[in-house]
Amino acid sequence: MVTMLELTDVTPGAACCAPLVREPLGQADAEQLAATLKALADPARLRLISIVASSEDQEACVCDLIDPIGLSQPTVSHHLKVLTEAGFLSRSKRGTWAYYRLVPEALERVSALLAAA
Amino acid sequence: MVTMLELTDVTPGAACCAPLVREPLGQADAEQLAATLKALADPARLRLISIVASSEDQEACVCDLIDPIGLSQPTVSHHLKVLTEAGFLSRSKRGTWAYYRLVPEALERVSALLAAA
Repeated sequence: MVTMLELTDVTPGAACCAPLVREPLGQADAEQLAATLKALADPARLRLISIVASSEDQEACVCDLIDPIGLSQPTVSHHLKVLTEAGFLSRSKRGTWAYYRLVPEALERVSALLAAA
Repeated sequence: MVTMLELTDVTPGAACCAPLVREPLGQADAEQLAATLKALADPARLRLISIVASSEDQEACVCDLIDPIGLSQPTVSHHLKVLTEAGFLSRSKRGTWAYYRLVPEALERVSALLAAA
């Protein structure tokens, strides 16, 4: 089976396919989109992404993310890693701390795939 | 903590909150959105929703959903139940068969919550 997936880029978080309501999704595309949605489908990760996204320049220091989430630093770091690997955040190290920045295109792609219109 | 969730309706799949990038999500809202996303975050369920959505009138008989998905009838029925409980599909029985129809508003709400702009 030839899918759109094989013809487009495979950047994490990249669009895999046509909007869900437009045409039946193939198995490979469905697996990719499911993995991307799984990365989002966690309360702590949704809160982290929303804190980063609503911060100045859509960037936040990991040091400012621990307290609002109320989880341990290793747990928060794990969630940030999942979001980064899924392409929703990018990470840069400056001095002692890691900074996470929203990759708005990744969120926008998922949003577009789920759009019903 | 008073959240938007307590002030709005709690229809399955209903909007829980402001778009993710606009303001930090509270815990209750994050839990609701995570549960909704979990219902979507499965390859078979994504394929089912896309087949229903791209069918005539955005409705399909369960009898036409088994073959394309390639899973057993009980498994397909389980996935359809999850999607129905999450508000993405509505179910009606006509004669021998159950028919599933897309609830486009539910998908649209999730899409809007994830919109990055």
